[in-house]
Amino acid sequence: MPNDGMNFLSDTTAPAHPALIDALARANTDFVPSYGADTLSARVETRLKEIFETDLKCLFAISGTASNALALSVLCPGHGAILCHDEAHIHRDERGAPEFYTGGGKLIPLRGDHAKIDGEELDRYLTEIPEGFVHTAPVRALSLSNLTESGTAYSPDEVRAHTARLAGRPAFAHMDGARFANALVNQGCTPAALTWKAGIDVLCLGATKNGALGAEAVILFPSVMDRFEELQVRQKRGGHMAPKMRFLAAQFDAWLEDDRWLDLAAHANRQASDLAALLAAQPGVTLAHPVEGNEIFVRLPENLAGTLREAGAQFYTWPDGSSRFVTSWATQDNDIAALRDALS
Amino acid sequence: MPNDGMNFLSDTTAPAHPALIDALARANTDFVPSYGADTLSARVETRLKEIFETDLKCLFAISGTASNALALSVLCPGHGAILCHDEAHIHRDERGAPEFYTGGGKLIPLRGDHAKIDGEELDRYLTEIPEGFVHTAPVRALSLSNLTESGTAYSPDEVRAHTARLAGRPAFAHMDGARFANALVNQGCTPAALTWKAGIDVLCLGATKNGALGAEAVILFPSVMDRFEELQVRQKRGGHMAPKMRFLAAQFDAWLEDDRWLDLAAHANRQASDLAALLAAQPGVTLAHPVEGNEIFVRLPENLAGTLREAGAQFYTWPDGSSRFVTSWATQDNDIAALRDALS
Amino acid sequence: MPNDGMNFLSDTTAPAHPALIDALARANTDFVPSYGADTLSARVETRLKEIFETDLKCLFAISGTASNALALSVLCPGHGAILCHDEAHIHRDERGAPEFYTGGGKLIPLRGDHAKIDGEELDRYLTEIPEGFVHTAPVRALSLSNLTESGTAYSPDEVRAHTARLAGRPAFAHMDGARFANALVNQGCTPAALTWKAGIDVLCLGATKNGALGAEAVILFPSVMDRFEELQVRQKRGGHMAPKMRFLAAQFDAWLEDDRWLDLAAHANRQASDLAALLAAQPGVTLAHPVEGNEIFVRLPENLAGTLREAGAQFYTWPDGSSRFVTSWATQDNDIAALRDALS
Amino acid sequence: MPNDGMNFLSDTTAPAHPALIDALARANTDFVPSYGADTLSARVETRLKEIFETDLKCLFAISGTASNALALSVLCPGHGAILCHDEAHIHRDERGAPEFYTGGGKLIPLRGDHAKIDGEELDRYLTEIPEGFVHTAPVRALSLSNLTESGTAYSPDEVRAHTARLAGRPAFAHMDGARFANALVNQGCTPAALTWKAGIDVLCLGATKNGALGAEAVILFPSVMDRFEELQVRQKRGGHMAPKMRFLAAQFDAWLEDDRWLDLAAHANRQASDLAALLAAQPGVTLAHPVEGNEIFVRLPENLAGTLREAGAQFYTWPDGSSRFVTSWATQDNDIAALRDALS
Repeated sequence: MPNDGMNFLSDTTAPAHPALIDALARANTDFVPSYGADTLSARVETRLKEIFETDLKCLFAISGTASNALALSVLCPGHGAILCHDEAHIHRDERGAPEFYTGGGKLIPLRGDHAKIDGEELDRYLTEIPEGFVHTAPVRALSLSNLTESGTAYSPDEVRAHTARLAGRPAFAHMDGARFANALVNQGCTPAALTWKAGIDVLCLGATKNGALGAEAVILFPSVMDRFEELQVRQKRGGHMAPKMRFLAAQFDAWLEDDRWLDLAAHANRQASDLAALLAAQPGVTLAHPVEGNEIFVRLPENLAGTLREAGAQFYTWPDGSSRFVTSWATQDNDIAALRDALS
Repeated sequence: MPNDGMNFLSDTTAPAHPALIDALARANTDFVPSYGADTLSARVETRLKEIFETDLKCLFAISGTASNALALSVLCPGHGAILCHDEAHIHRDERGAPEFYTGGGKLIPLRGDHAKIDGEELDRYLTEIPEGFVHTAPVRALSLSNLTESGTAYSPDEVRAHTARLAGRPAFAHMDGARFANALVNQGCTPAALTWKAGIDVLCLGATKNGALGAEAVILFPSVMDRFEELQVRQKRGGHMAPKMRFLAAQFDAWLEDDRWLDLAAHANRQASDLAALLAAQPGVTLAHPVEGNEIFVRLPENLAGTLREAGAQFYTWPDGSSRFVTSWATQDNDIAALRDALS
Repeated sequence: MPNDGMNFLSDTTAPAHPALIDALARANTDFVPSYGADTLSARVETRLKEIFETDLKCLFAISGTASNALALSVLCPGHGAILCHDEAHIHRDERGAPEFYTGGGKLIPLRGDHAKIDGEELDRYLTEIPEGFVHTAPVRALSLSNLTESGTAYSPDEVRAHTARLAGRPAFAHMDGARFANALVNQGCTPAALTWKAGIDVLCLGATKNGALGAEAVILFPSVMDRFEELQVRQKRGGHMAPKMRFLAAQFDAWLEDDRWLDLAAHANRQASDLAALLAAQPGVTLAHPVEGNEIFVRLPENLAGTLREAGAQFYTWPDGSSRFVTSWATQDNDIAALRDALS
Repeated sequence: MPNDGMNFLSDTTAPAHPALIDALARANTDFVPSYGADTLSARVETRLKEIFETDLKCLFAISGTASNALALSVLCPGHGAILCHDEAHIHRDERGAPEFYTGGGKLIPLRGDHAKIDGEELDRYLTEIPEGFVHTAPVRALSLSNLTESGTAYSPDEVRAHTARLAGRPAFAHMDGARFANALVNQGCTPAALTWKAGIDVLCLGATKNGALGAEAVILFPSVMDRFEELQVRQKRGGHMAPKMRFLAAQFDAWLEDDRWLDLAAHANRQASDLAALLAAQPGVTLAHPVEGNEIFVRLPENLAGTLREAGAQFYTWPDGSSRFVTSWATQDNDIAALRDALS
């Protein structure tokens, strides 16, 4: 797969993995029931049950914004609140989609280093927001991003410590897993360990950033499986029940096949690790956050940033002044090598 | 393209045209700007300008429900009203998506034969619903489906007669064109004649039922082009701004290429015409509506319906008791022949 | 109580009954718990239980639009539908408040003479709107206005015949009782007979048109009492949980005292009856609807309408061309006498 | 006006001023146009223009939650954001009413001592939230509470310093003036100086906590007066367009008469000042926030709090552990004296 070299802007600018295109062609035979009643959709659900070692229900969407918003809409009513990190994608980068889908649910942004919610901050808000007080929107969901928006990964223990704080409330835990595979590979644990065994009720499992054309899954674990019918209703009402759903299912089918999703993520993480090492070795360069997936945030001296851009490297300047480099399944060794050349 | 034979359930159960799968593979090279800033998206917009002989703005969605709801949401505020036929897809089959996207806009269902809005009915409601009266939701949009839900086609003159009734109001005309190509081929006129020249402000142009994997376009004609930025905001907020938008654009690019969209629709219409003639020739069979596209509604004697189903024919029984047969680009001569055999 | 004579525009232009002003003054002592936790609110609820001969829960609002919308919002989700008459106040005159409060619930307007829903029409829609079909908003509520928008009254039998049609669906019956007292007096039955005994789950009981300054009650009968907490949440969220709720409760307290609400309605109905007889006796005048409460719809010869207006009579011309006269608790014998003089 | 003594729970538990009850009785004559078209409503608007020394438009609501939500709904679309203090009433105590009325607008909570937004914090968020970026909800409003939720007052200069930061954005400044009169009296400036001259576009002027039965005004200053029609539509749609609006107008009319609103606020502030001095003189007692209106937040030794409660004093324990005492127009010298006795 050729590319234009040193494109570290985002994993959403990367192409799809060819195996997923092939899967679309294979799925394109014959008349097939529409709206998700096809056999490929069923097969993916079965496969996810094996992978996550539990019963579950799932449906597909074409964007992470859609899957997050749909997921949250069955956890939190319009008059409830969702706790998330102040930098969470659902709060900063989805144009209010969670508010739209929940019917005005309130996102409460919490602080914490490296885009992880600080435990004391979480405790404080849970204390301050009363349950059963008609004037105040009660906490109905906690949303954790894994990877976080700073490219860091929550460990199973960290997830569990946060979700445990919801005990005694009618509140649920959502994981924005746009880069879940990268977090999983980083943690080296099972998918179950990082999700429902750690108290996660709903996982939004993203494939788009990791090889798909456009496919995300909302996965309801047993604790909230009774909300699946409501989720389907909201999927329909939001315009996300694709008539020819088989083409979303086919992407997931090929993506999950033979651990491809993990292999692709592992590749991206390795490239990020190499890239981070390379950058961090430069004088005056510091990592803004630990590199625990496929994103690197570095503080670059201004002249160095200029040098890299002149050499053709593409990356974003983040609001906090750091530079973000993202690798993907499509990042090649010669992208890293080209950057090394530009640095020397 | 094989199929299981005599599947007349819906054009959404049909496969995608192979040329569109090929187009996905061709689009899958290299890193490409995300969220619609790619060159394929731009190329499709340019092509649509040629086809519709006017300036316009467009964006893509993955379902007709999404494109209709997004389109209506920039025409009608939550405190406005949308006139449509009582059997309109937006009113009966989209689980309230227009209400969701408009923020509670009110759909006012009107009556009329063959799923076309009756002119006198339209006049009556426009008279009864006052403008500028704070207590009543004013008319902000008129929605016409072409093809209609009964498989009939509005002519350019019929469209113009209806849209002209909005004169003097701050109201706009929307066309649900999930089967626009079928209507266009039936009418034998230009795309411009059936839309903006007849007073249509926004067209939802559907490709999914006519060969795409899942691709719909919302087209804003010049009268409402200033609402494009708002439309993009709502596309994002609804989760419909696909990160890898090139794969939606690629479908449209191949679909519009060399009049493929019209050829596929013409094929479907011809098969419908043949099928209708075949059915109508049976004793006791009557057509419920004129066949002006790729849908046939017939009243079948009960034993005949049973005979057809036993022979393997698949079709839906409609709420009014008629039987609906839908053809598509993938309906083959031997599907029709098999039905002929079953009838004899 | 003086008035400007022959004002038959609406019962909302009438003053409040002096006893209710007095009640405000009496309630204005001391510090009292806010937001509905006061003893007057509790006393009204107790009194309503006696009047309706059942357990119930109630809360107050300041307008019929608010009480209807709040009531419907706990019966119907955003993705559900509400059946009502095409001329219903909730559909025509509340600027989409039900859609706003339900989060986009769909109002399905039905037809029928004299603003009463026709039974066959109701049957047809209940048949056509499927339950459990993800694409279609299912029926979750039926709303009946009593008095209707044409001033007619549903009898207990008529109410029961309609609500019985919901059997087997998770759907509820709402009564818009902005003029409930007028209907009740007309029917000469018990409050229970016209509501919960006839299958009504929620009554919006209006006092504003019948002597209050501005006070409406949402009454949940036992079948939906478990939704009271949700109703309070929505009351708060809608800005309708008045901090000094005692002043709404005080109005109801005085209004219900010693059957005042029924006496005031009986007075208004008598005046309407006299007025109707007077008008109907004129050559060329026909009643558009039976007069069963405090509203008269008549078709007046044009010159007669002009004569009355010149004499100072105030009344509205209705969209259907008829003239509407409304009486109230404050309509006096000399208003009728003045009209008689103007006619002669 | 008797009371039960030492009730410092809230100014919403206080009675209404008798002059406002009298005003209701005086307004209760004759037939009067409904829904705000009455002469009293017009007179109040005229009086407010004099008081605020500017053209303006106003309408009434029955709760601060309603007036705030209505006001914000014409400043911020559903896909926009509102900056406010983390402890703001609109964020913490209105059950998501602003989100409901704006259609999902996002409240961004900012920090700062004594419930005043910190200037650097405000700068940081304004820098981080981009304008014209489709993925992020842009800032459309800044909301300041005056008095704040900690009982402190923004000065005209402080207000102007904050609103000036919005320059260059299509964003507006809202003031939650539930206790505006108290802030105004504290600052000793003109109403104009504390509002539109300091960059405020919309003021929610609260009378309920300061002598009314239930009356709040939304005041649009010239910069946003063109949104008044939209505001009325939303007032209707929210169920807040009271049919007999004269009774809301009458309250304001009496409240503004002869500076009554300022006299009542001055009384409450004086009582607060005395109470604060009394409490602060006790060993171990510290004021949590400056007392700049009618609210006192103190940190009480536990035994002292118990002693006061045993003596009959009523006050709330705040989430941060402090004790809140609120005075009002109805707080009498013997309430303070009784507390002094309890302390000694």
